Amino acid sequence: MIKKIDHLGVAVLDPERALATYRDALGLRLDQIEDIPSQKLVSYHLAIGESHIELLHPTEEDSVIGKYLAKKGPGIHHVALQVDDIEAERDRLSAAGLEPLTAEPFIGANGKKVLFFHPRTTGGILLEICQVVEEE
Amino acid sequence: MIKKIDHLGVAVLDPERALATYRDALGLRLDQIEDIPSQKLVSYHLAIGESHIELLHPTEEDSVIGKYLAKKGPGIHHVALQVDDIEAERDRLSAAGLEPLTAEPFIGANGKKVLFFHPRTTGGILLEICQVVEEE
Repeated sequence: MIKKIDHLGVAVLDPERALATYRDALGLRLDQIEDIPSQKLVSYHLAIGESHIELLHPTEEDSVIGKYLAKKGPGIHHVALQVDDIEAERDRLSAAGLEPLTAEPFIGANGKKVLFFHPRTTGGILLEICQVVEEE
Repeated sequence: MIKKIDHLGVAVLDPERALATYRDALGLRLDQIEDIPSQKLVSYHLAIGESHIELLHPTEEDSVIGKYLAKKGPGIHHVALQVDDIEAERDRLSAAGLEPLTAEPFIGANGKKVLFFHPRTTGGILLEICQVVEEE
């Protein structure tokens, strides 16, 4: 079951300028700054209602977000929907024709289990589903 | 004050296929189908948490969404944030360097007051602010 928009992932070239817009001008609360070396990026989590806007800034050009910025410029990189059971949703969505980018979910930002679907099977959106993992 | 993500506006070429993804596969509730002749589009409002995904299908090629699709293909067209006082937010955001596309808000989908800001001043996102107008 889809619960809500978890976050919008926004690729940014200049994090200070993006924070000036999203934190200072829009007034969104900066909840967390997360360094994710495995993806060569730093993520800035800004709260908005029940969701977040995550500013994604690459630490290297040779990274997923670095290449995205070089090709398309700054803007929305992906949309993440929070689900209650990611394996069940993967199976259900795959059966409906959405194409997962990996066979299995992996651990992403904030320790969530995440899985992406190819934009050509979702109407042009890089769609993430994510599940909050309860701490034991 | 920014309250929440009101909706994501998604430009779609084929509404039946998009509904198969967003309504049937993802299981989102189709709340409303809105014909907006002034913008030459039909909008499909799908509920997700406190937000909506609005599928935007042009009724004519010579329309804002028709031209967007011809240039960029299907995908996220804009992000709308709900505010409590649209004129106050316009003034505050304009003062912070965001560039409004129109001087005054106008009436958009569902009778809301809406105003857009140019992507070059928001980090690459066509940003809408909208305010629900209480019925008198």
